[in-house]
This record gives sequence, C-alpha cells and structure tokens, in this order.
Amino acid sequence: MRGYTMNKQDYLNRLRRIEGQVRGLQRMIDEDAYCIDVLTQIASVSKALQGVGLGLLDEHLRHCVRAAAAADRTEGDAKVAEAVRAVERLLRT
Amino acid sequence: MRGYTMNKQDYLNRLRRIEGQVRGLQRMIDEDAYCIDVLTQIASVSKALQGVGLGLLDEHLRHCVRAAAAADRTEGDAKVAEAVRAVERLLRT
Amino acid sequence: MRGYTMNKQDYLNRLRRIEGQVRGLQRMIDEDAYCIDVLTQIASVSKALQGVGLGLLDEHLRHCVRAAAAADRTEGDAKVAEAVRAVERLLRT
Amino acid sequence: MRGYTMNKQDYLNRLRRIEGQVRGLQRMIDEDAYCIDVLTQIASVSKALQGVGLGLLDEHLRHCVRAAAAADRTEGDAKVAEAVRAVERLLRT
Repeated sequence: MRGYTMNKQDYLNRLRRIEGQVRGLQRMIDEDAYCIDVLTQIASVSKALQGVGLGLLDEHLRHCVRAAAAADRTEGDAKVAEAVRAVERLLRT
Repeated sequence: MRGYTMNKQDYLNRLRRIEGQVRGLQRMIDEDAYCIDVLTQIASVSKALQGVGLGLLDEHLRHCVRAAAAADRTEGDAKVAEAVRAVERLLRT
Repeated sequence: MRGYTMNKQDYLNRLRRIEGQVRGLQRMIDEDAYCIDVLTQIASVSKALQGVGLGLLDEHLRHCVRAAAAADRTEGDAKVAEAVRAVERLLRT
Repeated sequence: MRGYTMNKQDYLNRLRRIEGQVRGLQRMIDEDAYCIDVLTQIASVSKALQGVGLGLLDEHLRHCVRAAAAADRTEGDAKVAEAVRAVERLLRT
C-alpha cells in the first residue's frame, strides 16, 4: 500500500489521457502538422506529466515521510533527502 | 512538407517509445510501485519528450525560419518570435 | 530559528557568489559578449540558484514539516501542500 | 556589435534589478525568513533571469542566425544547432 493508493484510479485516468495525447503527437507528426503546434502540444503533455508527478510527491511526503518521521529521525531524514533528489530530477528535465 | 519531414520516422519511433513509457507508468501505479520510482520514471519520460521538442525546434529553425528570413525580414522576425514563445512554453513546464 | 539556521553562512556564501555571477553577466552585456556565452552563463546562475532552493527545501521538509506533522496531522498535511506548491513554482520557471 | 546591442541598456537594467533581488535573498536568509518565502523569491529571480535569456535568444536568432543563413547554409545550420544547445542548457536547469 502506497501514499497514492486512495487516488489510484485518478492517476490511472490522467496517465491514460497522457497516453492519448502522446498518440495525438504521433498523428500530428504523421500528418505533417506545423512544428510550432507540435511544440505547443509537447509543452502541454509535459505539464500534464508534471501534474501527476507533483500529485505523487504530495502524497508521498504526506504518507511515507510522515510515517518514517514518526518511526525514526535518521530514517525520516533519508526519506526527505530521497524526495528532494526526486524533485531535482524533475527540475533537471 | 515540414522541416522534420526527412526524420519523420525517427520522431514517430521516439514517440512510440514514449507512449510505451506512459503505459509503463500506468502499470507501475497499478502495481503500487514505490512513489519515488514512479517520479524517476516521470522525469525520464519528460526528458524524452523534451528531446523530441528540441529536435523539432532545431529543424524548425533551420528550415521554416530560415526560409521566412530569406524571403522577408518582417516575416523572418515574426517566425523567430513565434519560435521563442514556443521555447518559453517548454521552459514554463 | 529556521530549518536552515545551522547552514546560514553556507547559504549566504552561495548567494554572494550568485550575486557576483549576476554582476559578471552585466559585464558581459556591457562588453558585447557573444549571445550564446551569455545564455550559457545564465543557465549556470539559474542552476546555482536552484541548488540553493533545493537545499532550503531539504531542510524545510526535515525540520518545519516534520515538526508540524509530529504535532498535528492536519497541520502536517498543510505544510506538505505548501512545500509542494513551492516546488511547483520552481518547476514552472 | 551584437544582436542585443540596441537594447543593451534594457538588459543592464534588468540584470541590476536581478542583482538587487539576489541581495534581497541574502537579507531574507540573514533575518531567518520563512523557508517557503525564500523559495518563492528564488522562483521569481529564476523567472526574471529566464526572461533575460529568452530576450537574448530572440535577438540572437533574429540577427546572428539570419546573417549566417544569408551567408552560408552550413554556417547557418551550425548557428541554429548552437542556439538549440543553449536552449537545452536553459531547459536542463
């Protein structure tokens, strides 16, 4: 059981929409859509993906970090460091 | 015909791989994968999407913008402004 | 007293270096440096700023959020939501 | 002479304001400001820096790339590739 378990179906729906958007990008390329329109759509897919990431981060921090913090200070610190590295990877893309 | 027409198949292949990665994300959520692993995979999909965007931008600037600039100074400037706004949208995600 | 109090001097030093880099950018513009070199330097300053942000986020999550979570579940959740919105603002730039 | 020469004073003013914002960040840290407020200010400085970068990119593409494109196709392609790599560095921060 994970922090996001309660909203699993919501995340799955959002990812299915994103999958549909990526197929839409393929269609645009296939039909020689204007480059700038493809770039705009790529920015929109990236934003949707990031929204999923921020949602997961929120729930992760609430559940996992809190549980770890309650249990043990060192483990809590390690969990926070791990989450911040994940944020860094999101920022670097 | 677009700037990316010569590499159409390459872009389609990359987008199909990205589609597969998004399906992989759904599988991870479905199987209650660890939040941080899902975030890492999201960063990787974003990076792949951005790679497609940068490739398209490169070809767009080479072909469309240059052609416009050669034809007419005002039209060339408008094309550059349009491309920079597309970059801004990519940066803002 | 804040989460970052222990490393205050380190943050001040990093921000002073960033201030120096911003003055360096002014010098580059003043001396008509090549545009791409200015852009590279801007990316480097942004990265340094982001490093400060990630450091503060790490300490904030470790200290403030954990303290709030230990005290009260609702307050802990509010602190996490606040931190995630801060991450979102960093991502959107 | 560079693409941005005409707007040099505008860029210098913006960078001076950014320098002031970075000094403001030092003051916030020095006075133990709330972590989230510091992060919000960092996002604002990053955005201002990025605005300078996008302005320079616009002028670079308009002037340098156009000149290069007029002179020689290979040189034009190299200039575009160089500009796209600069965009990539901005995206990666």
